Amino acid sequence: MRVMGVDPGLTRCGVGVVEGAPGKRLHLVHVTVVRTAPDEDHALRLLGVEQGIEALMDQLRPDAVAVERVFSQHNVRTVMGTAQAAGIAMLAAARRGLPVALHTPSEAKAAVTGNGRADKAQVTRMVTRLLNLDAAPRPADAADALALAICHVWRGGAQQRLARAQVSRIEEAARAERERLAARTTTAPGGGSRGGTVQ
Amino acid sequence: MRVMGVDPGLTRCGVGVVEGAPGKRLHLVHVTVVRTAPDEDHALRLLGVEQGIEALMDQLRPDAVAVERVFSQHNVRTVMGTAQAAGIAMLAAARRGLPVALHTPSEAKAAVTGNGRADKAQVTRMVTRLLNLDAAPRPADAADALALAICHVWRGGAQQRLARAQVSRIEEAARAERERLAARTTTAPGGGSRGGTVQ
Repeated sequence: MRVMGVDPGLTRCGVGVVEGAPGKRLHLVHVTVVRTAPDEDHALRLLGVEQGIEALMDQLRPDAVAVERVFSQHNVRTVMGTAQAAGIAMLAAARRGLPVALHTPSEAKAAVTGNGRADKAQVTRMVTRLLNLDAAPRPADAADALALAICHVWRGGAQQRLARAQVSRIEEAARAERERLAARTTTAPGGGSRGGTVQ
Repeated sequence: MRVMGVDPGLTRCGVGVVEGAPGKRLHLVHVTVVRTAPDEDHALRLLGVEQGIEALMDQLRPDAVAVERVFSQHNVRTVMGTAQAAGIAMLAAARRGLPVALHTPSEAKAAVTGNGRADKAQVTRMVTRLLNLDAAPRPADAADALALAICHVWRGGAQQRLARAQVSRIEEAARAERERLAARTTTAPGGGSRGGTVQ
């Protein structure tokens, strides 16, 4: 099972891909950070994140995607971009019919260190050890994305099967939605594009 | 000039398209709400919003897209979905090379009523009058999307030309980005997908 972990961000979006199965040895497939420049146009930055993630998904072909759950308690100046980057990763996965899971930072830390409040150094040490690497993965801030991916591999099994069932449901609903939209958008202006007209 | 206004939301995403030019009469092209069910999978909801907006852009071919600027002061329970829906509208526009502008709710209200703190009823009355409609546009909550579009039409001119220049820059950067990614993703695991390896 190959899992892509995504630690969302607009300036730096960590992406770590790990292969393994519950109870088996883990392997690092790839780790990187997709970056966009803070002084660039916002829409262009979103496009940059999307293209980066799409390219990595095309090349690395994960079986599932684990995205860090974004909390609004984060820095309010960056939370919008973080939420949008997380949305882009979820969208890219949904488009490919890949199951998407959200894990909190605490869940990922607890998975690799046994402590949901572990510091960055401890998480990095454990990620390095669990993946049998000679040195800490670089870029250093991509270790969180790897922890997310490892967390998801270990939670595999039942959850994974549920996710696959959900994906079939997503694809089915998306198909129905497309058909509904195609039918609706031929009606006169003022109608709802989905469902009836609602005041 | 045909402008699509987007009042972002995950449950209800208002979309209003208006045609006009500064100092000229305004025309309603289309108004609708793209909806997703709150009990559906989050990734599926994002996909539903994307497909709804993409279908409307394909059909209505706006020259520019105006998105309501999302503030973090909003309800923290819904701000993530709102930020992601706004990001999806911006992404869809950027993919088509359309200029994207963000306007605050106050700017849109001030544009149509002269008062940035006008209430919903006043905004709806003015949108109805400015578009020469016989009755208030429905769905009722799409009036904000129309106000955004009108705000953008009236701000046209110089801003629009700047936006077009920006779009060329976006397209240029996106092309360069694709090439850079194609080159980078052929390197060994552990490398950065953009720029060099950074600790």
